[in-house]
Amino acid sequence: MRTSRDIRTANRYGVLRQIIASSPTSRQELAAATGLSLATVATLVGELLDLGMITEVGFEESAGGRPRDLVAVHASGGALVGVDIAETYVHVELFDLALNVLARAEEDVRPGENRPERLVGHVAAAVGSVVAQAGSGAARVLGVGVSMPGQVDRGTGVSEYAPNWDHWHDVPLRDLLAEHIAYPLHLDNPLRACAVAELWFGAARGRTDAVVVNLGTGVGAGLVLGGGVHRGVSNSAGEWGHTTLVLDGRPCHCGNHGCVETYVGAPGIMRHLRELSPGSALLHPDDQTATVNALARGVAAGDPVAVQVVRDTARYLAAGIADLVNLLNPEVVVLSSWVAATLGEPLLAGVREAVARHALRRPLTATEIVLSPIPTDPVCLGAATFALEGALGSAGQRTAAVRRPGAPARSRTAPPE
Amino acid sequence: MRTSRDIRTANRYGVLRQIIASSPTSRQELAAATGLSLATVATLVGELLDLGMITEVGFEESAGGRPRDLVAVHASGGALVGVDIAETYVHVELFDLALNVLARAEEDVRPGENRPERLVGHVAAAVGSVVAQAGSGAARVLGVGVSMPGQVDRGTGVSEYAPNWDHWHDVPLRDLLAEHIAYPLHLDNPLRACAVAELWFGAARGRTDAVVVNLGTGVGAGLVLGGGVHRGVSNSAGEWGHTTLVLDGRPCHCGNHGCVETYVGAPGIMRHLRELSPGSALLHPDDQTATVNALARGVAAGDPVAVQVVRDTARYLAAGIADLVNLLNPEVVVLSSWVAATLGEPLLAGVREAVARHALRRPLTATEIVLSPIPTDPVCLGAATFALEGALGSAGQRTAAVRRPGAPARSRTAPPE
Ligand SMILES: [Zn+2]
Ligand SMILES: [Zn+2]
Repeated sequence: MRTSRDIRTANRYGVLRQIIASSPTSRQELAAATGLSLATVATLVGELLDLGMITEVGFEESAGGRPRDLVAVHASGGALVGVDIAETYVHVELFDLALNVLARAEEDVRPGENRPERLVGHVAAAVGSVVAQAGSGAARVLGVGVSMPGQVDRGTGVSEYAPNWDHWHDVPLRDLLAEHIAYPLHLDNPLRACAVAELWFGAARGRTDAVVVNLGTGVGAGLVLGGGVHRGVSNSAGEWGHTTLVLDGRPCHCGNHGCVETYVGAPGIMRHLRELSPGSALLHPDDQTATVNALARGVAAGDPVAVQVVRDTARYLAAGIADLVNLLNPEVVVLSSWVAATLGEPLLAGVREAVARHALRRPLTATEIVLSPIPTDPVCLGAATFALEGALGSAGQRTAAVRRPGAPARSRTAPPE
Repeated sequence: MRTSRDIRTANRYGVLRQIIASSPTSRQELAAATGLSLATVATLVGELLDLGMITEVGFEESAGGRPRDLVAVHASGGALVGVDIAETYVHVELFDLALNVLARAEEDVRPGENRPERLVGHVAAAVGSVVAQAGSGAARVLGVGVSMPGQVDRGTGVSEYAPNWDHWHDVPLRDLLAEHIAYPLHLDNPLRACAVAELWFGAARGRTDAVVVNLGTGVGAGLVLGGGVHRGVSNSAGEWGHTTLVLDGRPCHCGNHGCVETYVGAPGIMRHLRELSPGSALLHPDDQTATVNALARGVAAGDPVAVQVVRDTARYLAAGIADLVNLLNPEVVVLSSWVAATLGEPLLAGVREAVARHALRRPLTATEIVLSPIPTDPVCLGAATFALEGALGSAGQRTAAVRRPGAPARSRTAPPE
């Protein structure tokens, strides 16, 4: 069962999320937007004020009542770092508390460099770079969120395996990073990063049930269920890329056959292009990004091979998305990550049309399918949000423990719900 | 977001569930088992005592402390009716509050009789029969839960469609039943009924994330996520039977091709038997139950055709269950309904072996696959549990509103969490 502490943390997330989205805002507006009681909102706002994450910014007249105090996110009240580890690069961004990007760094990971010590060196260098860019006048770094592909144990900080690095098994990644990085570290995988990014700042905000479909080299689904991220019993939920689309179909590196990923991941799309038109100029062997870019340009130019490949990809994708719609009955399905961003509207149109042929009427009617509205790297943003959630999750204890001596306790008008 | 009222209702469910499972028990044991604070448990126990659903039954010595008061479910404090509407029959059972069956009735639904008015007549007759069997000395009926196949709108009580009755669309089933049945009515579908039955009384009790796979004529999955039933935004989650197992495979009545249901539903199993051995004596055309019974006997006797059909069915089923394991990362997958009960251990063994070949290592390791331990009709039991949940859901308001004049208010040691 969810404990009262889980609920309090979830509600603290919800109130801050709403303040970030609608600063400046009043406690009354927050209560209306979150469904929480005014008393609970007042308590949570008090905690966020104590933490310096939000500030009082004056008041507004209200119709026929007392003027309402306004609060806003205190953008310079702290900094958050998001780390996106991928097969070929490490992206790092530093954010203020309004989740604006203040600094960026990138390191290439060349083939063969993906040994744990080398990778940790790249991450540490990039984190050092963004902190240095932000300068000595910058806000205190509250934490560093790290997105690592594959299965991650959040409790122990161990990266169990990385899908495209054969020799990578049970790496104590958080401990290795902690030797170089002094800030609190929060590990999870890109599915979770994209899900929290959409939940806090994107198309899943305010939704109870949402699915964030990640289309890149690997493929998966971040699940938002009951208003929070669904992780499963061992934090490995969301492996939609390894659900069966074609029984006994294409072999997959996971050992199964016919997985969704083998059809709609970037290598699967390249394979389809190669089979359809072996000598195509669209095909850049060994360069997924260049090939998907070429397909996007080809569709725009009306190239029939490109149109066919994107249409067929949309159809495979739609069969897999219809499974998610029928099984989970979400309010929204968000297409995220670089393949979705690159193929864009033509892919979306094909998916919408084909999902309508595969899904049941009632869940279909309840679901929107959209492209991610997040303009920057959603994995970095989501990873930084892990750090923000981490800072908030421990906030309850901290506000109680470290209140300045002599400072008046904020009136607690209600116990946190 | 979940409101404080949702949480209070969920916690009330959790405490009563634990009392039913472990009567007699103390508030201290309940707090330990549910993870709630002792103060919250005391409040919820007070509400359940006020409602007459539980009673004080003495005390036990505790090690070195004050004796602890014990409470137990008050079995005769009310009665619940569960209705299982299926393609060919209506089963109705009347339960006491410990969910013991006190009376049963069954009506056959002959082909052509499944018009709404005829069906409602069958249900009303069977409900009347179980109430009459229980007699005039019986406890007050707190509610009637009804499981109706297909998509059900719980808010309006409309049955949107029934998968095997072509002419059945948007039937206001609850309103039609209310013309004959005076008790509070609670409608939902068999996927949800089997899920709540396992959550309250079966293999999902005490689990946070569980999947109840329903194997009958139709096929689906009841989802328990985050400790409660996941219904989705329009109460149509769980349609695993209509997720794609074989792209462009067997046509399905839902309009899609290659759905899980077309391979592992009873008609799909019969089709496989017919294709494998057209003249098989195991095959009883137009009788699913007789055919599945014959297959079970055939496996026990070592009949190679029966062994082959069950092995292949297990393999199809395993590919679909591996999808659920990879996507949702549950603690337990429960095989429920009559096909699972009839084929039993040989089916389970085949499924376990094949899921291990299809699923990813980390979620696989975290998942048990079991047969439902519920010995009676799980759909009737689950439907009666809808009625129990309905009675509890409205209990908060009622205890506040109808406390007997002059009766002392119970001390509320804490606000409900
Ligand atoms: Zn796979
Ligand atoms: Zn279907």
